[in-house]
Amino acid sequence: MVTKPQVKKGVARPRLVILGSGWASHSFAKVVDAVKYDVVIVSPRNYFLFTPMLASTAVGTIEFRSIVEPIRKANEFIDYFEATCLGINAQDQVIKCESVQKLEGESNVFDIPYDYLIVGVGASTNTFGIPGVEENCFFLKEIENARELRKGVITRFERANLPSTPVEEKKRLLSFVVVGGGPTGVEYAAELHDLVTEDMSKKYSKLIEHFTVTLVQRQNTILTQFDGVLQQSAMDNFKQSGINVITGADVVEVTPTAIHLKDGRELPQGMTLWAAGNGTQTLVQDLLNSIPEQAEARGRLIVDDWLRVKGAENVFAFGDCAAMESGALPPTAQVAGQQGAYLGRLFNRDYCLECELPYATAKPNSNVETIGMTSLAKPFQFLSLGIMAYIGEEKSMIQFEAGDNKLKLSGALTYLLWQSVYATKQVSFRSRVLVLFDWFKTKVFGRDLSQF
Amino acid sequence: MVTKPQVKKGVARPRLVILGSGWASHSFAKVVDAVKYDVVIVSPRNYFLFTPMLASTAVGTIEFRSIVEPIRKANEFIDYFEATCLGINAQDQVIKCESVQKLEGESNVFDIPYDYLIVGVGASTNTFGIPGVEENCFFLKEIENARELRKGVITRFERANLPSTPVEEKKRLLSFVVVGGGPTGVEYAAELHDLVTEDMSKKYSKLIEHFTVTLVQRQNTILTQFDGVLQQSAMDNFKQSGINVITGADVVEVTPTAIHLKDGRELPQGMTLWAAGNGTQTLVQDLLNSIPEQAEARGRLIVDDWLRVKGAENVFAFGDCAAMESGALPPTAQVAGQQGAYLGRLFNRDYCLECELPYATAKPNSNVETIGMTSLAKPFQFLSLGIMAYIGEEKSMIQFEAGDNKLKLSGALTYLLWQSVYATKQVSFRSRVLVLFDWFKTKVFGRDLSQF
Repeated sequence: MVTKPQVKKGVARPRLVILGSGWASHSFAKVVDAVKYDVVIVSPRNYFLFTPMLASTAVGTIEFRSIVEPIRKANEFIDYFEATCLGINAQDQVIKCESVQKLEGESNVFDIPYDYLIVGVGASTNTFGIPGVEENCFFLKEIENARELRKGVITRFERANLPSTPVEEKKRLLSFVVVGGGPTGVEYAAELHDLVTEDMSKKYSKLIEHFTVTLVQRQNTILTQFDGVLQQSAMDNFKQSGINVITGADVVEVTPTAIHLKDGRELPQGMTLWAAGNGTQTLVQDLLNSIPEQAEARGRLIVDDWLRVKGAENVFAFGDCAAMESGALPPTAQVAGQQGAYLGRLFNRDYCLECELPYATAKPNSNVETIGMTSLAKPFQFLSLGIMAYIGEEKSMIQFEAGDNKLKLSGALTYLLWQSVYATKQVSFRSRVLVLFDWFKTKVFGRDLSQF
Repeated sequence: MVTKPQVKKGVARPRLVILGSGWASHSFAKVVDAVKYDVVIVSPRNYFLFTPMLASTAVGTIEFRSIVEPIRKANEFIDYFEATCLGINAQDQVIKCESVQKLEGESNVFDIPYDYLIVGVGASTNTFGIPGVEENCFFLKEIENARELRKGVITRFERANLPSTPVEEKKRLLSFVVVGGGPTGVEYAAELHDLVTEDMSKKYSKLIEHFTVTLVQRQNTILTQFDGVLQQSAMDNFKQSGINVITGADVVEVTPTAIHLKDGRELPQGMTLWAAGNGTQTLVQDLLNSIPEQAEARGRLIVDDWLRVKGAENVFAFGDCAAMESGALPPTAQVAGQQGAYLGRLFNRDYCLECELPYATAKPNSNVETIGMTSLAKPFQFLSLGIMAYIGEEKSMIQFEAGDNKLKLSGALTYLLWQSVYATKQVSFRSRVLVLFDWFKTKVFGRDLSQF
């Protein structure tokens, strides 16, 4: 239940602390009235990352700097502290933070009191406790991951190219494996295949015969979010372009040189991307453990229709770390972005915090209902703008749901169109210009193969 | 003395091994006839780096990818192996190499026999054995260094911005020191000042009052390569824009938080770039130690006018690791680039290796002299295209020597003009397009302040 703001001594406005700088937080920061609230963002990452293009940057189709935006640019009236939240004291309404970068071997620990806390820390990568994954796999969540992948591919080719590397070892080094058939895994496999066939083939021509990409998926099909027809189409496309797809495969161990499957098969690997699903951040798990009302939560904070965390007063959550009580939404950028904007608008409405439930005056064309004397803000409703996946060779799959009809589009232009519609709201003009230039650059000059 | 090629078994053409992928090697690779020779480049870095713009990338004015070019692009007929040369066996004409990137904790060691060896490994940074430099300073030789600097500045600002950081510590963290008043040090100080005043001031406005840049120089003036008038002009410019210059200062120790000078002064530092001069690579030092004729060498391989290493048969050297017997040239990109092209042309000339000295047929307009029966290739002659330094706020200093006259130019357009003339020969069309776009990007959107 949202209560009256507890104005702390020396704090003129209620303080609103946001944890995280991803889709939900960024969207919230753009919308929230930072004059009405003392808004503070705490995140280890001082920039917003346009994650749908992360796989493209991991092979150099798009550059890293083109898909980031300093979080301070989202709203010039907010404060930002570069720190990790170590713990939440919901009783005293205070969080403990630690600076991220160690300087002279020391970090900096400090407390921040809050009136309202919004948790948007996202999810971690789930290794499912499978031995060897942590040590022997690459991941794709952050820019640093993408950079390691970009460098890692070149490293394998350079090593395979040495005169002392035997043929068997060349084959092993150039066996690229992707575990996970969701959008991240599929798009990286597609981008990697593009990189090698379009660019690396010219400079490492003798090695191309040894190159393989294998997509390992636990379920019987890939891109399960999509319609069956599209799933099959994606599989066919991969088959045609030479990407191996192994479905119904359970990984039981990853060693430095191989992937072991439950059925006894052993896949040689030179480099493996693990993109098999989301896990729970430690901070979220700690919070879940401390709230009895969250006993049935499955790794995500249960929130009501107004994004309030069940059992924790003045604590809200959105994005991948939150699950709506009325039905968990997929952990996507679209959901997070819409939740951020929704919560920002709720906080901006006058008197909304005086009512039993977030209140808003009914206006024409606003998404607010009026119920009797007490107005009730409309609960969060996700509006799907469609789902998209890049499947290589400039082909994309897009699925819109319009009533009972599922629309399917594909091709390079569609991709651009969809991206521009999708990206308009939350991506800066700068990013759009840079991404367009990157595409032009890749078309004209190819991807850069320098190793760093 | 250059002797007849020793054609090894199974090697149809004489093998020419080049160590390094810097200015000299890159220039050589572009010129050399890789059909006539079996050309192999061995270098830990698989790309050529346009070093004059490295300081610009270290603050984000220019992006890293814009100033690199895969070494394989220099000449599609050469082989490249990504490895470090561990040792040269000049007796048996074979080198020992080790792969750079460790995979599964292991590296790969292998031998390469050569007919001709060309050493172009450059120089290391000279710490002069001063305590604390290695551990507590940043350097600026490679892309990785530039990346650390770019991230390092943001890290200091983010740390200074934390609510728990006391004012004294903020001041210390934002005390940036540059040791060395040569082009690298001066340009980085200028670029850093640009970054902070033009871009960081907008997002970290409360911290700007604590920001300082101090240039520490051992000699009594900076940019000693330039004319006295220009040196003074650079000092005046720095003074005017608020960059402190301390001349005649000997650094005796660097601690994590301070620079200690010989006269007892202690300068607080949050981040220090060490750009105080060139040292000798281990490989070069080992080679020097093994050749009696190099006893008088001062950290650089003594070469004759045809770039042959004194006392080592079939070994050549160019760039920063070589010093002409007739008078050491400055360790600059210009010298290295010209030496590379010169040596490439020498190797390309028919029969040149049959003569006592490199031979070439005299042609009209060629830079070759004919002496009696035995033609003698013209010795290497450095043609200075002028020297340039960026001194901040879009001002550059350029000095040409035309006979006894020294010409001076300055301003943003001059900089572009000079860069384009200078860069035309060795920098790819791609790099020029990207650098121009980066300038446009910086002008329009400012430098990106995301921390990675």
